[in-house]
Amino acid sequence: MNTIELKTPYLVFLGDAEDLIMAKVAKGVAHWRPEKCLAQFRLPEAKAKLDLPEMSPKEAAKAGAKTFVMGLAPIGGTLPKAWISILVDAMEAGLDIASGLHAKLTDIPELVEAAARTGQRLLDVRVPQGEMVCGTGLPRSGKRLLAVGTDCCVGKMFTTLAIHREMQKRDIKATFRATGQTGILIEGSGVPVDAVVSDFIAGMVEQLTPANDVDHWDIIEGQGALSHPAYAGVSLGLLHGAQADVIIVCHEAGREQMDGMEGYPVLDLQEVIDMNLSMGKLTNPNIRLGGIALNTSNLSEDDAFTTIAQIEQRFGVPVVDPVRTGVKAIVDHLEITHA
Amino acid sequence: MNTIELKTPYLVFLGDAEDLIMAKVAKGVAHWRPEKCLAQFRLPEAKAKLDLPEMSPKEAAKAGAKTFVMGLAPIGGTLPKAWISILVDAMEAGLDIASGLHAKLTDIPELVEAAARTGQRLLDVRVPQGEMVCGTGLPRSGKRLLAVGTDCCVGKMFTTLAIHREMQKRDIKATFRATGQTGILIEGSGVPVDAVVSDFIAGMVEQLTPANDVDHWDIIEGQGALSHPAYAGVSLGLLHGAQADVIIVCHEAGREQMDGMEGYPVLDLQEVIDMNLSMGKLTNPNIRLGGIALNTSNLSEDDAFTTIAQIEQRFGVPVVDPVRTGVKAIVDHLEITHA
Repeated sequence: MNTIELKTPYLVFLGDAEDLIMAKVAKGVAHWRPEKCLAQFRLPEAKAKLDLPEMSPKEAAKAGAKTFVMGLAPIGGTLPKAWISILVDAMEAGLDIASGLHAKLTDIPELVEAAARTGQRLLDVRVPQGEMVCGTGLPRSGKRLLAVGTDCCVGKMFTTLAIHREMQKRDIKATFRATGQTGILIEGSGVPVDAVVSDFIAGMVEQLTPANDVDHWDIIEGQGALSHPAYAGVSLGLLHGAQADVIIVCHEAGREQMDGMEGYPVLDLQEVIDMNLSMGKLTNPNIRLGGIALNTSNLSEDDAFTTIAQIEQRFGVPVVDPVRTGVKAIVDHLEITHA
Repeated sequence: MNTIELKTPYLVFLGDAEDLIMAKVAKGVAHWRPEKCLAQFRLPEAKAKLDLPEMSPKEAAKAGAKTFVMGLAPIGGTLPKAWISILVDAMEAGLDIASGLHAKLTDIPELVEAAARTGQRLLDVRVPQGEMVCGTGLPRSGKRLLAVGTDCCVGKMFTTLAIHREMQKRDIKATFRATGQTGILIEGSGVPVDAVVSDFIAGMVEQLTPANDVDHWDIIEGQGALSHPAYAGVSLGLLHGAQADVIIVCHEAGREQMDGMEGYPVLDLQEVIDMNLSMGKLTNPNIRLGGIALNTSNLSEDDAFTTIAQIEQRFGVPVVDPVRTGVKAIVDHLEITHA
C-alpha cells in the first residue's frame, strides 16, 4: 500500500479549541463522515463542540474507537507539550493517533516510545507512505473527476466531497480520493501529494486512483493551481496522474489577487480552463470541463445568483456554489454526459 | 545554504569501470571542469582512463584534493561492498566523498562512522540540502536561460554546459546551474530538483538562481519535459522557479516515441515550444525561444545538416547540434537579442 489508511471509527480530539474554525479538521470529519465518528474528546477549556457523544480515550476505545484524530491545528502547527501525555494515554487505551500537523508525531520521542510499547500507530498524514513509484501514463478503466483551481483555498476539497456525497445519494459508484491532510483525515485514506518527492507526483496519483469499474467515479481532491507560481508543479503532476475525464474548476467570486502571491492576479476563468484542458489532454485526450464551482461567500444572495447565471451563460456548463446551491446541477450534467 | 556545495579540487574515482560510458560522471567532470580535477584514482582492473595524473586518495589529499568524486554508476546503483574501505581510507586521508548513486552514502554505517570520526562530509548529491522553501514568484534581476526538452535524455545538460562554456570564452558573465546529480557533481553545486518535495520545486529553483547582475546569465540545466506523463510536474516547477527569459528546446532528431513511455509519441516541436512559452509566461511574461538544440547522433552528417537547416527555416531561431556544430549560433543570437 502506498496510500495512508486510518482505522475507523474515530475519537475526534478538539483540544482546547475556541471555535470550529480552530477545529476545522474536527468539523470537516464530523460533517462529511459522521458514520466514522464515534465520539468527541474535549479538554475542559474547549469552547468548540461537535454534535457527538463525549468520551475519554479509554471510554472510546472500549466502545470500539480505533483512531484518535487530531481535529485542530494549534497555533504554530506544533503539538503543545501538555498534550503529549494525552496522546500516550490514548495509545495505551488502544488507539492509533492520526495528525495533520506540520510537526511530526514521529519526531516526539515519548510518542515513538509509546507506539513501540503499545503497538499502536502514529499516522502523520502529511508524510507519504510506502514505496514511491513513477507514473506510467497508461490508460485505465473507470471515470475520474478532478477539482482544479484558479488559486489555492478556493473550495476544491469541499466541492469534491459534496459531489461525492451527491453521487452516493444517487447510488452512483464513487470514491472520494483525498490528496491533502484534511481530506485524508476526513476520508481515512489518501496521498498527501504536495509532500511527495516531485519525481513521483503523477505516479502516486495513479496509485491513489487505480483502474476501477467502468461506471465507477473517482472524485479527486485538487491541490494548488496550474497558474500558481509556487505550486503549479504539484497541480500538473496531479492532473497528469489523475488522467481526469472531467475537471471542475473552483474559483472564489471576487478574488482578484492570488492568496499571498504579490503581483499575481487570479487569471480569467477561460484561461484557467484552457490551460487545464490543454495540459490534461496529454494523459487523457477526452478530458472536458464538467462544471464550475464558485465560492460566493463574499457576495450577497442576489449578486451570487446573478454571477452564477452569468458564468453559466458564458461557459455552457453547470455553475454552482457548493454551499449556497449544492452540487446537484453538476452531478445531473455528469449523469447525462458520462452515462 | 540550500544548494549542495562540493569543495574542489576533486580526486575522480573510476572504480573498475570498463569504459567511459560506465564512468560517464568522471568523463563529464573531466571534460567540462578540468580545472576542478586534480587527479584520477583507478582500481587495478579498470580499463577506463582519463587524461589526468593517477593518485591514491592519500597522495591526492597531500596534493590539495578536497573531494573524492564517485565517477561511475556501478550496476544497480549501489556501492560495491569492497569499495567501502576505499571510501573510509579517502576520508581518513582528508577527503569528502561525493556520490550521485541511488544508494545513499549516509545509509552505510561504516561511512557514517568514518565521517563522524574524521570530520569529512558524505555528500549524496541526489538528496536536497538545507531548508526547503516555497516559491514567491517575485521578479529578480539577471538573465536566465533554461533548457527544456521534448523528452528525457535529449541532451539538456550537455547543451547548457556547452552554452555556459561558450559564454565564458566570450567573457559573458554566466553561471551554470545544475539541477540533476551528474550536473551537480560536474559543477560542484546545485539542487537535485526531481528529489525535492513537490511543494518546494519552484522555491528551490528560485534559491538556486538568485537575483544577479543585470548582465549576468544563469544557464539552467533542465529536467524532464512538460509533455512527459510522469515528470511534467518537475519540469513545470523548474520553469516557474527559473523565471526563464530564454528557453532552449532540446530534441533528439528522429525520436518518435518517448523513452520508456508506451503510447506516448514525442510531441511536435511547435507544440512543445508553445506549451513551454505559454506556461512559462506566468512568472516571466518576456519568456522567448532562444534556439533549438538537436541531438543528431542518429543521422548521417548530410541528413543532420539538412534537418538543422529545415528546422531553422521553420522556427526562425538558431538550431544547433551541440556536438556536431557547437552552440556558437545560439550565443551569437543571445548577444543580439539580450544585449
